[in-house]
Amino acid sequence: MTTRTLHLNAFLMNTGHHEASWRFPESDPYAHVDLAHYVHLARIAERGTFDSLFLADGPQLWGTVAQRPAGALEPLTLLTALATATEHIGLIATASTSYNSPYNLARRFASLDIVSGGRAGWNIVTTAGAEAARNFGLDAEPAHAERYARAAEFLDVALKLWDSWEDDAIVADKAAGVWGDDAKIHPPRHRGTYFSVEGALNVPRSPQGYPLLVQAGSSEDGKAFAARYAEAVFTAQQTLADAQAFYTDLKARTVRAGRDPEHLKVLPGIVPVIGSTEAEARAHERELEEHIVPAHGVRRLEQLLQLEPGTLALDAELPADLPPEDAIEGAKSRYTLVVELARRERLTVRQLIGRLGGGRGHLTFTGTPEQVADAIETWFTHGAADGFNIMPALLPSGLDAFVDHVVPLLRARGLLRTEYGPRRTLRERYGLPRPANQYTQPSPSAPALV
Amino acid sequence: MTTRTLHLNAFLMNTGHHEASWRFPESDPYAHVDLAHYVHLARIAERGTFDSLFLADGPQLWGTVAQRPAGALEPLTLLTALATATEHIGLIATASTSYNSPYNLARRFASLDIVSGGRAGWNIVTTAGAEAARNFGLDAEPAHAERYARAAEFLDVALKLWDSWEDDAIVADKAAGVWGDDAKIHPPRHRGTYFSVEGALNVPRSPQGYPLLVQAGSSEDGKAFAARYAEAVFTAQQTLADAQAFYTDLKARTVRAGRDPEHLKVLPGIVPVIGSTEAEARAHERELEEHIVPAHGVRRLEQLLQLEPGTLALDAELPADLPPEDAIEGAKSRYTLVVELARRERLTVRQLIGRLGGGRGHLTFTGTPEQVADAIETWFTHGAADGFNIMPALLPSGLDAFVDHVVPLLRARGLLRTEYGPRRTLRERYGLPRPANQYTQPSPSAPALV
Repeated sequence: MTTRTLHLNAFLMNTGHHEASWRFPESDPYAHVDLAHYVHLARIAERGTFDSLFLADGPQLWGTVAQRPAGALEPLTLLTALATATEHIGLIATASTSYNSPYNLARRFASLDIVSGGRAGWNIVTTAGAEAARNFGLDAEPAHAERYARAAEFLDVALKLWDSWEDDAIVADKAAGVWGDDAKIHPPRHRGTYFSVEGALNVPRSPQGYPLLVQAGSSEDGKAFAARYAEAVFTAQQTLADAQAFYTDLKARTVRAGRDPEHLKVLPGIVPVIGSTEAEARAHERELEEHIVPAHGVRRLEQLLQLEPGTLALDAELPADLPPEDAIEGAKSRYTLVVELARRERLTVRQLIGRLGGGRGHLTFTGTPEQVADAIETWFTHGAADGFNIMPALLPSGLDAFVDHVVPLLRARGLLRTEYGPRRTLRERYGLPRPANQYTQPSPSAPALV
Repeated sequence: MTTRTLHLNAFLMNTGHHEASWRFPESDPYAHVDLAHYVHLARIAERGTFDSLFLADGPQLWGTVAQRPAGALEPLTLLTALATATEHIGLIATASTSYNSPYNLARRFASLDIVSGGRAGWNIVTTAGAEAARNFGLDAEPAHAERYARAAEFLDVALKLWDSWEDDAIVADKAAGVWGDDAKIHPPRHRGTYFSVEGALNVPRSPQGYPLLVQAGSSEDGKAFAARYAEAVFTAQQTLADAQAFYTDLKARTVRAGRDPEHLKVLPGIVPVIGSTEAEARAHERELEEHIVPAHGVRRLEQLLQLEPGTLALDAELPADLPPEDAIEGAKSRYTLVVELARRERLTVRQLIGRLGGGRGHLTFTGTPEQVADAIETWFTHGAADGFNIMPALLPSGLDAFVDHVVPLLRARGLLRTEYGPRRTLRERYGLPRPANQYTQPSPSAPALV
């Protein structure tokens, strides 16, 4: 039996996940457009033998640029550049099913998978918010359920496109002048509710068949989608009990969808804040909070809760009359998580901003390397996680600290690989099989599997 | 006065521009998906101090895969990978205005421009053909004029997006907690015939402001578009006289559009077939033709002429009753060029296929390095070209031969740079100014320029 080991993903974000990270002396305020910065981060993550790194994204400029670094290199572009600077680590890009066409996006992920030698992953998002919608010819965002219906059809089309070349479609018979076998090309001829896509993809099937499919929405629609398609799920959970409940629920949904629950990996996001003593770690956490400009934090919280500017008072608790999750058209599960956190701990707006500043609702693990490793081990061995999405408050220093001080402990405990070994695909790193091509017939001479 | 020198672009295409190139012993039939192959080509072009390299594209799988290598890595993805493997050469990707959204495409080009240090170029195409249309929800291709109307609006929106951040929008005042100046962010708020795009781009203005704008259509609509927007034009011309007429016409149109004609560079495509003697070059040319499978060539010619399969007879001339260019909805100018070539020289279908096999209507310069250099110099100094789009029949060997044997002659004649010198943007290589931002006001204390 193979020992179960952690899957670690490095969630990269310019100067770090803390909203005030850019104000620290070590931080480069232009890091978000600096390829060398991201190459440096990717190499730290490879030093830590992470499975993958990940870039979030949305096709809009969020809020104002006064508050903090805004805008970002387009993720597939950045990951392509990182593919050439790294050898082993998986490369997961966020891309929207609401604001892309299946043909173009399927081809771009196949291309990244090819140039990276099978290391591409796609974090599938439906993109909440009217701001994005208005950049693509719409006046308002599509309803939550409609976004997910479109996402499901998008995936079905993309899977047909990725399978539209059988793996052995290229014959390359120079003498006969026959390059490919047209019988092994399968145009989707798809006509659906949201998309009509006739022809085969114009790139051969990639090393992984298609990118690792990742998902991060935790709403009801999101969980149903994950159970059907996702191979890895990023999630925000504030307590061990919540994380266990989410993990159990999602694995059960995967079984009900007819899939092996081992083929969906659950990775809660955590913000590790590390010190050589617990006191030092707490002091670092306070230093982070003190760099938040309160007015910026209030405005960001108002946006998350879909409140008008000026609704929240800094030293009061949240208003009692917030709308239920059902009324939220945006990031539903994040909304509920934040409101429940504030109510459970009776936090003032100021305190809530401090708690959210680091990870936007993700859990902060603050302490010594041993304490952080203990927390990771507890979640991993108590049915709450198959691994973690590591979200350092400051970058690069927070990732360096994790790799230098926590990773050796996890390795010593047998929880994490000590080296990559031979090159593998991202899907192999996550312990998942290469998907079969839906159009490939079993060989007539081969015995039937069922 | 600065001496006028050649602008050279390397048009890269898997195993070469000759349709039978993949059948040669030296050719790798999997080159089209091999990053190392393209890195090798890019480095040869840099050794030849070319201004740029270029990838054609269309969002569909052309015809059958039996004939020759089909499909390709998505160009922006491949060029991003090449950006990290090269230092000086410009990187020009083809992308369609008919099958992309301005917000996504503008961001991707800005991202490539940033990661390449200002070396991005965009070959703007409207994409002919029903096959592409059917991959994007349409039953037939939009009419030629409509495609160009959409392209013009696409460009206007893209230019607004690329200018939506002023160059000094980032303040980065850590002490005050102010990262950007919202007064220097300019959302397009565009509502037009084809597009509605509300918000600013989510990436800052790139080193070049925006990518070098390249165009290659030579129809009436194409030339009008080029005169208005293009900074470099790729074109297929079969005779010096035709090339001179095209050059003169396009420069005059540029002046009529209110632009400096020096700010539009004309680059005819040429297929150099080089031998140490003229006889050796001719023998190489014949060897290329002999590798064409006649049935494949006939079918490709029928597709170009929009004829039913089986219409053409191999040893007869073209039928007399071909439709006029006006009736063609696809690549209009290429259609006319091929028909005129066949009529002028009374070529049989077999002969025409041989002539087209190398460059699909581009001119083949066959001879010794001196003869090829002479032809280049003649065109360059006789009002036919500002440079050339170099399209080797075989890759990499044809590009190696050009760089090793023709480039030294061009340098000795003072027609081509001998080294790159300091790093420059692609637009600087082409002798073009960095575009001003349409939203930036002149400083109140600066004297007016007019």
